[in-house]
Amino acid sequence: MADFTDKLRPADPQGPTLLSQERAGSSVNTDQLATHLLSRNDFLNRQKKVLAILEQIPIFCKKNQLNMARPDRYHLSLARAKMLRRLTLKHGWDRDDYLMADYLMDEMGPYALHGTMFITSIREQCNDEQRAYWLPKVENWEIIGCYGQTELGHGSNVRGIECQAKWDPKTKEFIIHSPTITASKWWNGALGRTACHAIVVAQLLLPDPNTGKYKSYGPHQFIVQIRDKKTNKPLDGIVIGDIGPKYGYPGMDNGYMLFNEFRVPHSALLSKYSGVDPERGTYIKPQNAALVYGSLTFVRAQIIMHARLILARAVTVAVRYLSIRRQFPDRDSKDPNAPEQAVLNYPTVQIRILPLLATTFALHYTGEAMYKLYYGTREQIEKDGDLSRLAEMHAASSGLKSLCTTLAADGIETCRRAMGGHGFGGGSGMIALNNEYLSKPTVEGDNWMITQQTAAYLIKRMTEVTKNPRAKPVDTVDVQFQDFVANKSRSYDFDILGHPLELVKAFKHRASYLSYQVYHARVVEKKPWTSMMISLHRLSRAHSESLLVSNFYTAVFESTPNPPLDAATLNVLEALFRLFALFTLDVSASEFLLSRALSVDKLQLVTPAIQDLMAQVRPHAVRLVDAWSVPDYLLESALGSYDGDVYNRLFHKAHKENPLNQLTFNPDWRTEEIVMGEGEENARRRLEALALGVTGHEQFGAVKSKL
Amino acid sequence: MADFTDKLRPADPQGPTLLSQERAGSSVNTDQLATHLLSRNDFLNRQKKVLAILEQIPIFCKKNQLNMARPDRYHLSLARAKMLRRLTLKHGWDRDDYLMADYLMDEMGPYALHGTMFITSIREQCNDEQRAYWLPKVENWEIIGCYGQTELGHGSNVRGIECQAKWDPKTKEFIIHSPTITASKWWNGALGRTACHAIVVAQLLLPDPNTGKYKSYGPHQFIVQIRDKKTNKPLDGIVIGDIGPKYGYPGMDNGYMLFNEFRVPHSALLSKYSGVDPERGTYIKPQNAALVYGSLTFVRAQIIMHARLILARAVTVAVRYLSIRRQFPDRDSKDPNAPEQAVLNYPTVQIRILPLLATTFALHYTGEAMYKLYYGTREQIEKDGDLSRLAEMHAASSGLKSLCTTLAADGIETCRRAMGGHGFGGGSGMIALNNEYLSKPTVEGDNWMITQQTAAYLIKRMTEVTKNPRAKPVDTVDVQFQDFVANKSRSYDFDILGHPLELVKAFKHRASYLSYQVYHARVVEKKPWTSMMISLHRLSRAHSESLLVSNFYTAVFESTPNPPLDAATLNVLEALFRLFALFTLDVSASEFLLSRALSVDKLQLVTPAIQDLMAQVRPHAVRLVDAWSVPDYLLESALGSYDGDVYNRLFHKAHKENPLNQLTFNPDWRTEEIVMGEGEENARRRLEALALGVTGHEQFGAVKSKL
Repeated sequence: MADFTDKLRPADPQGPTLLSQERAGSSVNTDQLATHLLSRNDFLNRQKKVLAILEQIPIFCKKNQLNMARPDRYHLSLARAKMLRRLTLKHGWDRDDYLMADYLMDEMGPYALHGTMFITSIREQCNDEQRAYWLPKVENWEIIGCYGQTELGHGSNVRGIECQAKWDPKTKEFIIHSPTITASKWWNGALGRTACHAIVVAQLLLPDPNTGKYKSYGPHQFIVQIRDKKTNKPLDGIVIGDIGPKYGYPGMDNGYMLFNEFRVPHSALLSKYSGVDPERGTYIKPQNAALVYGSLTFVRAQIIMHARLILARAVTVAVRYLSIRRQFPDRDSKDPNAPEQAVLNYPTVQIRILPLLATTFALHYTGEAMYKLYYGTREQIEKDGDLSRLAEMHAASSGLKSLCTTLAADGIETCRRAMGGHGFGGGSGMIALNNEYLSKPTVEGDNWMITQQTAAYLIKRMTEVTKNPRAKPVDTVDVQFQDFVANKSRSYDFDILGHPLELVKAFKHRASYLSYQVYHARVVEKKPWTSMMISLHRLSRAHSESLLVSNFYTAVFESTPNPPLDAATLNVLEALFRLFALFTLDVSASEFLLSRALSVDKLQLVTPAIQDLMAQVRPHAVRLVDAWSVPDYLLESALGSYDGDVYNRLFHKAHKENPLNQLTFNPDWRTEEIVMGEGEENARRRLEALALGVTGHEQFGAVKSKL
Repeated sequence: MADFTDKLRPADPQGPTLLSQERAGSSVNTDQLATHLLSRNDFLNRQKKVLAILEQIPIFCKKNQLNMARPDRYHLSLARAKMLRRLTLKHGWDRDDYLMADYLMDEMGPYALHGTMFITSIREQCNDEQRAYWLPKVENWEIIGCYGQTELGHGSNVRGIECQAKWDPKTKEFIIHSPTITASKWWNGALGRTACHAIVVAQLLLPDPNTGKYKSYGPHQFIVQIRDKKTNKPLDGIVIGDIGPKYGYPGMDNGYMLFNEFRVPHSALLSKYSGVDPERGTYIKPQNAALVYGSLTFVRAQIIMHARLILARAVTVAVRYLSIRRQFPDRDSKDPNAPEQAVLNYPTVQIRILPLLATTFALHYTGEAMYKLYYGTREQIEKDGDLSRLAEMHAASSGLKSLCTTLAADGIETCRRAMGGHGFGGGSGMIALNNEYLSKPTVEGDNWMITQQTAAYLIKRMTEVTKNPRAKPVDTVDVQFQDFVANKSRSYDFDILGHPLELVKAFKHRASYLSYQVYHARVVEKKPWTSMMISLHRLSRAHSESLLVSNFYTAVFESTPNPPLDAATLNVLEALFRLFALFTLDVSASEFLLSRALSVDKLQLVTPAIQDLMAQVRPHAVRLVDAWSVPDYLLESALGSYDGDVYNRLFHKAHKENPLNQLTFNPDWRTEEIVMGEGEENARRRLEALALGVTGHEQFGAVKSKL
């Protein structure tokens, strides 16, 4: 509908003009840097190719998502998941194309577990016969699967799960049973409304051949058909449902499931590594599971690489919007008509955004290093059966998963707050980003729990090094520990504002110091593990930060990028390295002081140095975020779009696309009528039903069509 | 529908048993402490009285809220707002009863601005004649109002707003006009769909009597009818709408509004302090606006008191759930059947939750101190016209608003993450709490911006004190600054683990040190203001923390509570004081080292001391949160309910109350059908409309009724 606002435009200066000026004022070579960052797996070309297809399809439009009822989000998400599957066949997409589409669609949907956890179990836990039977069905999507491990009462401690699979020697079946409410499967994606098959993790209970008394052999995986293929209703003896709304993932049907003495055949137990002898009902023991650690490292490298793109998305929105947004003239200006300043020019805004921009690069180079470590280690294992690096790799991946997902999750919120009022609005594009990513500090190993694994490893290495200070180093960290142990009482005061390598040394020294403290408490003083948990967590963080800093250093100062980077671009990367390292140091400054890596006098100089570095990086901020190549379709943000047309987009979104504006309401409190003309009686019935959820949100439609 | 899950219960130990044990194991007198904390304005009795009424009314049921479409949330919220107004009359509620109902309803609704910003403008900005005309209409709710200040392009910098009110000397009218898109009013609550009248803040433009050229006299308030009373449609020349979904406040119609040469009479300009001479068209200058600062302090004291209850809510959920949740046996236990530990027993969980529990008390005592300061100052002003304390009060309120809302906002998320998977679920009760509270660091003065006001004040005081180090102290902070200036180069190493007063001294010393640094940079070295912003922010935080610590200290160690507290309860409060102070110190430890308030050796002892204090507080945690008396209706949390029946509640919520479980879906990707039986064509049309927002979410109902 046309009105007088159609001819209005935002006050000058215009956003697109300002972003053009920002881009013109920097010599960073965006395309070159984008290629440098995003060549793995032909990322950039793939993104372009898949995006062009997605943008044409109406149900992939995201603009109405924040208005929808949660149940409708599942409807839409199922429709989209089906469409992605059909597009895969139509366009001959490979697995990476499909994953790209999933990344751009940016929605955890009801097929997400089929192609990941479900198929992985089929591939890795089935014996040959099982795999031959199941894998084609799964790969052809004849069945849709999910993975049922977590329970209502049991998460990280998998040993504690209650669901039972009891062997019945008479019928040679397993009886799957949920003895309690807490034994209910819970959280399992795609279980709630979608999947017809599930991998069910249950305690394997076998009878003692002599006494007949049952004993648990721990959690095992079973493949179970849970729904009728024709009606999609749960089979008899199984209760299933969706667990309801969560912070994020409205389109995913995270489910619950209980079994009432539900029988499955002997072949349901996935038996590659262990099994049950069907004749004697005895247990067949598993082989070494060390290789599992290897793939866990791969998953965690992926998490870090994902974290960098998530954080890049938040930083992109923040940098672009804050370069455009003007607020207050300079306080010291004598000119009464002095123009308002770009918000990103304020140091109090820079200190929140620019270190996060540097962090995206830090995450990138460590993600790359983790991939290299993973592939190198896998080659060693496959060629020589050499498992020696697994422990180091696992320790690094645990601490880094914790640190990197925390940095990204906190970073999103930091960006949002820096954007003031509009950051709180739906036009920011931050709502879904934030709500979904907040799951990451918890899943794949809780961020406060898994750091124990990193610390335990470091204690072990420090114990070895203290025993034999001059032994040939086994793991990478040994060299650093040997150095430390040889000079334990020395004060350093590293020249952190001089040569960048000194920053790496300071981080390593602090990590070694904390390792030694913790080693001493545990091994020498025999302190209880639980009482040390806070120190263990801090140690893991210190070690992981030192990995981030040293990988960043190596990439920028010791590697030759291929293809090469322009000198101007490299200079900015060097400043970003220093900014990341100094900012990270400043956050935990007291640990650097305690470990004598730094003097109090040196610390005084850190904040001014950070401010100088931010001034160096500031002119390049827009081009740096451009290099991350996050398309507008993924940003879904009026504030962060590439063209910078912030205010027109915000206004258009509200004025043309908000369904609430289609109705007129009756604001008079003396009447119960809500929508003008619907009458009191109607409104009362409708609103009560809505509040109580008796008939759900669809009431609204019924009333409206009556009007 | 009955099924086999009806007879199941959670695995032992049961939540209610565990919470009973927790309560039995502590000697804190909950009722006494509750009275101590919540007697102001008869809070506890009022809560009981109002709650009993609200719980009976179907539309006040909250359980379906997370499932609803955003437009429906507004419908419901409007119905609730009307009902609250009718209940007020029916039960003869006073203003405090009404506010209590609003607090318990826990939803920012379409009448929220009427009773606050709108009525405040009418009361405080109208001249006598205007007030006589408008106030009765407003107090009787004959009109519903809103407050239109913020614009699409202009927030904190009110001077920058673009909306114009141009005086037409011929017709003696103001012409209200929005010259650009960025001049659109934006964010204004209750404007979008509800209010018929608005306070519009616009640049007052008056013609020069000689040249006729217009000049702005700055932003002024106008009262404007914006909608037709009968149809509730916007008047001609005005475009209004709701701005769309936000992080929180789905029930509030935050709006936008533009004017196209819209004429209002001379009487529309609220003219208590300033005005326009209708005959000559000249400006009548305003009087001193110092009193405005006073009421700002009151608003900010309210924000702090609100922050404590918000944080108490998050901490209540976390403490109760984490006392029930079991995970992992003790790692050092030799017993293979050792029981799993309550999660709250882990120091890595305690360090996240227990300092926040202590923070609720810190916020409380500072909120109380602010009220006292406000009432005391107001009395001084009314009795003696003595404005001398206004600056101090305003400075304290700015820094504290920033610090306290940051602590609460961050604290909610810290609690949520500590609860692992279930913290991410809708049963946590944290989703709305988090989404709504995240607005607070931005509104009522952005948390990074207003700290400049605190710092500016401290620079001013330090300048005075350095000039006359022995003058009679004017403000409270002067004494502290005089001490500092007299001993600038001294090292202290306060005995922070000994007498609690030493903690207060350490915080004051650090704040004085930073004040001196900043004073020196600005006044002596003449550094640009903008370049100092990071230090200014840090200074404000340091000063505000010292206020929190010293108010907490005074309340616990130097006051006699009336009625008195049991010794056991007081002991726990003392431990909470130390915990809050030491934890806060540890977060910024390097500032205490730099200022020589502390030696590196002393700092080594802080973490163990914190851990000891947490062990002291741990047994009382459940009773301490009970004292905050947050009712289940407000918590709306399966994890945090008073009775501790966590798992039954979580399961019931999913299994009996989730509307998504009422439909069966077709998961086969080969068909476009989504709901079983709806057919492909129907589904396609429905989902496209949903994605594009063409007809909104009501489509869902239309399809369902057809099935």
